[in-house]
Order: sequence, then C-alpha cells, then structure tokens
Amino acid sequence: MINGALLVLAIVIIYTATGFYRALQASIGFSIVGYIGTDILIPKLIPLFIKKNFIGKDLSKPSNPIIPETMGAVPAVVYLFIMFFFIPFLFYKYLVIGTAGGGNRDAGITLLEEDINVEMFPHDKLASYLSAILTLESTILLGIADDLFDIKWRHKFFLPAIAAIPLLIVYYVDFGITHVLVPTKFLQNYFGTTLIELGSLYYVYMGSVAIFAPNSINILAGVNGLETGQSIVIGILLLINDACYFISAQHNSPAIESHLFSSVLVLPFLGVAFALLKYNWYPSRVFVGDVFCYFSGIIFAVVGILGHFSKTLLIFLIPQIFNFVYSVPQLFGIIPCPRHRLPRYNKENDLMYPSLAKIEKPLNKSIENVLKFLAKLKLLYIIEKEGKIVELNNLTLINLTLVWFGPMREDKLCTTILIVQFLIGLFALILRHTLGLWLFGYDNLWVPN
Amino acid sequence: MINGALLVLAIVIIYTATGFYRALQASIGFSIVGYIGTDILIPKLIPLFIKKNFIGKDLSKPSNPIIPETMGAVPAVVYLFIMFFFIPFLFYKYLVIGTAGGGNRDAGITLLEEDINVEMFPHDKLASYLSAILTLESTILLGIADDLFDIKWRHKFFLPAIAAIPLLIVYYVDFGITHVLVPTKFLQNYFGTTLIELGSLYYVYMGSVAIFAPNSINILAGVNGLETGQSIVIGILLLINDACYFISAQHNSPAIESHLFSSVLVLPFLGVAFALLKYNWYPSRVFVGDVFCYFSGIIFAVVGILGHFSKTLLIFLIPQIFNFVYSVPQLFGIIPCPRHRLPRYNKENDLMYPSLAKIEKPLNKSIENVLKFLAKLKLLYIIEKEGKIVELNNLTLINLTLVWFGPMREDKLCTTILIVQFLIGLFALILRHTLGLWLFGYDNLWVPN
Repeated sequence: MINGALLVLAIVIIYTATGFYRALQASIGFSIVGYIGTDILIPKLIPLFIKKNFIGKDLSKPSNPIIPETMGAVPAVVYLFIMFFFIPFLFYKYLVIGTAGGGNRDAGITLLEEDINVEMFPHDKLASYLSAILTLESTILLGIADDLFDIKWRHKFFLPAIAAIPLLIVYYVDFGITHVLVPTKFLQNYFGTTLIELGSLYYVYMGSVAIFAPNSINILAGVNGLETGQSIVIGILLLINDACYFISAQHNSPAIESHLFSSVLVLPFLGVAFALLKYNWYPSRVFVGDVFCYFSGIIFAVVGILGHFSKTLLIFLIPQIFNFVYSVPQLFGIIPCPRHRLPRYNKENDLMYPSLAKIEKPLNKSIENVLKFLAKLKLLYIIEKEGKIVELNNLTLINLTLVWFGPMREDKLCTTILIVQFLIGLFALILRHTLGLWLFGYDNLWVPN
Repeated sequence: MINGALLVLAIVIIYTATGFYRALQASIGFSIVGYIGTDILIPKLIPLFIKKNFIGKDLSKPSNPIIPETMGAVPAVVYLFIMFFFIPFLFYKYLVIGTAGGGNRDAGITLLEEDINVEMFPHDKLASYLSAILTLESTILLGIADDLFDIKWRHKFFLPAIAAIPLLIVYYVDFGITHVLVPTKFLQNYFGTTLIELGSLYYVYMGSVAIFAPNSINILAGVNGLETGQSIVIGILLLINDACYFISAQHNSPAIESHLFSSVLVLPFLGVAFALLKYNWYPSRVFVGDVFCYFSGIIFAVVGILGHFSKTLLIFLIPQIFNFVYSVPQLFGIIPCPRHRLPRYNKENDLMYPSLAKIEKPLNKSIENVLKFLAKLKLLYIIEKEGKIVELNNLTLINLTLVWFGPMREDKLCTTILIVQFLIGLFALILRHTLGLWLFGYDNLWVPN
C-alpha cells in the first residue's frame, strides 16, 4: 500500500522532470523506486538465502539467532539495474532532439541535422557514466565472490583496484588531470609553482582511493546497522557538499557538472541503502556482507574520482581512516590480536562493553610507553598490574566509543557512532570550504568572476 | 611449464602489435592469457566449489560421480577482466598521441594540440565497448544468481534482456539504424522501396536476439562438452565470417570495423572457452552451469548487434533454433514432457540411446498424423501399437542425432553434433555471401566501387 503510493510519487517525480536539474529530479524518483524495489525483494529473498546457507550468527543477542548473510547484494543489484534505466533520463535532451533513429519521433528533422546532432551527443559523458557503472558492477561481482569463498584478507584487499580499471582508463582519456594544488603561499613560493604534476603517481593515488574507501568501510563493522548507517551518513555528507555547489557556484562552472554527477549517483544509493537499513537496524533481520561495504565504498570512490574531489571525499572518511590507523598495531601484529575484536555482549543487562586483548608476553618498553601515553590522552583503556600493561581494549573505533561513553545497548552504540561520524564530517566540510580558501588561495566553490 | 611458455608467447604477441590490425594481434595475445588464466584457476577452484556445495551428478556415467557445477563462471570472469586490460590496446593510437595527462609521455606536445586530440578520441567507440562489457558482466551476474537460486524458467528467460539495456541504449545513440533491406527485386518493387523502417520494433528485435542467443545455447545441453563445444563452434564460424571481410572488403569499409570489433571480442572468448573445454570434455571434471551458456550467448548477441550482422548471427544458430522449434511441442505441453529429456545411458555397453516419452493419454488425431508424417521424414522415432503412437523420442536435437546415427558413446555423440553444427554453419555462411548478393542485389562483402 505504502509502496504503491511511493511508486506513484516516484513516477510523477521522474516524468515531470524539466530544466537544468532534470537529472537530479529524476534521480530522486529513481531513489524512491530503489527503496521500493529493495524493500520488496529483501523479505522475499531471506528464505532463499537461508536455504542456500548464506547465514551468520548474531553474537550480540541472548539467543545467538541465525541471520541471512550477504543480503547487501540485493540493494546493490537493484541499484545497478536502476542505473541502467536512468541512462535515457541523464541524456534526455540529446536523445530527443539529438540522435538519428527511433524513426517515428521528430520525423521533420532532416538527415543532415541528425548527423550534426549525433556528433553533439556527449559521448565522453556517456563513457564516464558507463565506466562508473562497470566499476560498480565489477566490485559487486568480486564482493559476492568474496562472500561466497571467503577470499584471504591480503588478496581481497586489492580486489577493488581491479574493478576500478575501467574508471581509471576513462579518467585517463577524458581528464588526465594529474596535478595537485600546492597549499599555502609559502609552499607555492618554495616550489615556485601552484601546481605539482604527479603524472602516473596520480593514478596510483586514485587506485588507492578505490582500494581504501571500500576496505575502510568494511573494517568499521560488527554492530547491527553500522555498515549501512555509516554509508548513509557519508552519502548525506556528499549530498550536502553537492548542494553547496548548486547553491553557490555559477551555473556554467564545471564544478556544477561534477557535483550533479555525484548527486545523481548518490541519491539512488541512499534509496536502496535506507531500505536495507530497515532490515539491518537493531535487531538485525539481515547481515549485509562484505559485498555491501565494497559496493558503497566504491560508489564514493567513483564520485570522488570522476568528480575531481577525491581529497574532499577523504575528509568524509575521517572516522574510517581513524579506525584503520587505530587498528594498525593489531592488524600488523605489534600488539596481540584476538580472532574477533567485536565489543563484548553482556547477557545480564543487554549492554555492550569494550572487548579487551590480553597481553601475555611482556611488551617492548617503548611500545609500552606509547600505549600509556595514549591511555593518558583517553585514546586507550588499559589495565595495569605492577606497572605493566596486562590488558587493553581492542583497537577499533567501536570499542573506543564504548570506552568514552560507557557501556550501552547495541542500537545506542550504533547511533552514537553515526552521530559522531556525521558531526565530524559536517565540521570537516565547513573547514574545507573556509580553510581551503585560505590554504590554497582558491576554493572552487567561490570562483572569482 | 607449458603455461609459462605460452605466457611468454602471449606477451611477445601483444607487445609487437603494430599497424592496422594491432587490436586483432593484441587480442590473440589476450586469448592466450585467457587460456592460461582459466587453466590455472579451474583446478584451484574445483575444491572450493565442491566445498560450497555447487555440485551436480553426472547421470551418464556408471558411478554417477559428483561434479562441481557453475564452473563456467570462472572463464566468464577471467574474460571480463581481460577485456578491462584490453582497453588501452584497443585505443592505443589515440591514447599515446592523443590525450592530455600522463605528463611524462610526449612532453613536447603543446597543450593546444592535446586539446584537439582529446576531441579526436573515439568516445563513441569507447562507449560501445564499455556498454558491451557492461552487458556481458550483467549477464554473468544474473547467470550466477540463476545458478545459485534456481530462478524459475519463465523468469530467467527474460534476464538477458535486462542485461542488454546498456547495449540497446548505446545502439540507439550511436547507430539508430532501424531499417532492414527488402529481399529480391520483386518485393522491392512491390513495397516501392529497398528499405523498410522498423522503428522501435527493431529494438524489440534486438532485445529478442539478446534473449534468444543465450537461452538457445542453454537448452542445447546435457552431454559432456556440448555447451562449451557448441559455443566454440559458433565462435569459430564468426571468426571465419570476419576473416572474409578482412580479406575481401575494402580497407575503408565500415564493415571492416564491425568485424574487427567482432574478432576482438570473440578471440579472447575462444581462449577461455578452450581452457574450459579441457575440463568439461568427456569425461567431464566440471559442469559449466547456466552462467556459461548465458555468457557465451550474450557475447554472440553483442557482436551481432553492435556489428550490424545480427541476421548473419542467426544463421550460425540454426542448430540451436532447430532444437528450440523441435522442443516447442514438449515445452508447451502439446506432447507429454518428462522431467529430464537427456538421452538414456546404458551401463552395459557405455552407450547413449535416445530417451523416449510415453504417450499415456491418446493424442489428438491431427497431432498424431503430424507426428507420423515427421516420423516418415526421419525427424522422429515413434513406437506404434495398434496404429496408435505409444512412445516417441524426446524432442531434442541430441536425441534426434542418436535416432539418425544410432547409439554411441557420449564423447562421440558430442563430436557428431559439433561436426554437424559446424558443417551447417559453414554451408549457411557460403549461402549468405552468394545467395545474399542475389536476394538483396547487394552484399556488404562485395561493395561496388
């Protein structure tokens, strides 16, 4: 019933789309379609996924219920096919006035005019769009393979880079911008230039963004709703950033187009992600799988790279970057790393507590001192015995949140992390458009006339 | 060892590629890479597939061994990622002399020249290529979903059409040719034109090709090696057809480009398919799954549609079309259809016999007469009792082959079907380039000067 009403609304939005922001309006319509499609499919597919043994146990509940896994593949595939149907709306004005063919439309246009218009069709834009979708789809395919076959950590870490190849090639062909701005007048004078040419290093950088965004979302996980929730927060931050450009930048600025592209990809993502959140939120009825984390991460990488704001994207990933850096001592074995680093669930009071790692062999003196210093900064919870660290919280942002704010129920824990993430992102966004102007002597939001 | 030597050969072929047929030569190199990659991955993945319960029983062997299923996903994914790396080779001349960026190459080129060259880059070709790969990848994704969840026949039949959307959109933008030639002078005079404009009907036609090619390969199946073998035969026929154009047509003919595109897609396909055949040939160590049939079928549909020779493609699918039409009475329930229509395996002598369908309710008189007539034409094997048909062979090309040539071992059965398929295809190809000239007064192979 609600779905039916929403569908009518979506159709109205899509078909009344006109003017400069036609694509944006249509994408709002498609995001509603994505929400409905995902919302219908997930409950239908839950029994199939369970039957095929795509299941996991929820360890943070009293009864350790069996939950279908990898269900994030559903919104991902829905998104993908929505983006196919979206192509005509993105290129509407060229398709209708522009191209030959179709026969029965615009019969009055002569062949000559048609030929000219075919050349006007923005094939470079279409190629960018197709390469973006291709990269997304490849990431989904590899994510499903990962969930099916439990690919080793050191292998799967690089999978998104393979998927990003079509994207990097199209970037190479169409933009080839491989320089970065030098920050501050002082450094600009020092280097004698405002731009540093990175050449092929820039492709390594973009490949790294494509690797980092999916993986960093994938390791900030383990609490009901957190994978989906953090992706939604990043999506909303990207939309706010886009909106800054729509409101402030000049109509003919190239930044407008980049951010239109970003919004057009992010809006339908939010549609499918909100439908997933409905089932993934505490108490979860579905788990999302690595496939969803890769999928959402690569969307952000794609819009950042093709929209030329991958550095802005990284400031929206500050909590994920922090979580990764914070995890490094355990990931690289400097500090003992138990098999699971999830927070500890206490059946008695239904609350989550930070999980602790036991230090069995005495630590190196200098590492011990660093850890004690971090504990003073409230970045670590340690238990000492005779002046030696014997236990410390597992190094994840989730555990640290519990150290800071005290034990809480799983849904409150998730909400807390999401609010902190959103506030950090908003603050970084404001800094980026104020400090950015000061650092670079230039911000593409406030283009001089 | 052999793989190592092949790899060296592949690298030499790829890197010595020059001249007009650079793309063709590189694609031979990549088809070797595809062979090696698939040949290495399949044996490694067999235990993983079995562990994850992707298995089927081989009913045509004495011990009914357990065989890993869906292994066709491996060559499909290898193919896909090869085609990513192929992009720079396809667009080599534009990328090296052409585009901005990269910085360290061709530093002497001024910015102005670069800008002009960026405009020269054939974005329309890149968009075609990306849409082709996107359609392939979507088909693979849907094929895997089908193998995982056993999607219902009436649903999965239409899946390739969804995957074909990006392809049809690019066709719409770039070619928009929706007319067909009217055959024979007589009909041309009758219609008063040599061309009939089909308009949007032509898109329905292309969508049908995209649906038909994968499904028709998928239903000519059930004998070790047949799915892979028939796909290889069609691939070879397409290459022979392409070669006709390379040899005969003029260098600047647009047909050359279409057939270059076709060869460039088909050659790496043959590489991965031959590696699969090694494991799928009698006695099969792997089953290929629906995913492989969809994958190979959609490659043929893609090259046929984007190369503007979908009608020529259909003559290479004559055995599949025959098998489909022949199956219709059972598929639509006019004649009883048992659950399996595979030929019957006889343990005693290790031979395959045509399997029979029992007629339990008496047939309609006119159907009975048609069947008896078909039996007279040797298109059917029937057993009569008191003038009534009580049994007839299941209506598949495989059973009919056994009716014609007598019982034989499974590998000989597969070889026989493949040889017949190849001969029919070759004959059709010759007819197409001789009769075609006579029917249409024009064959694009022999363009008048």
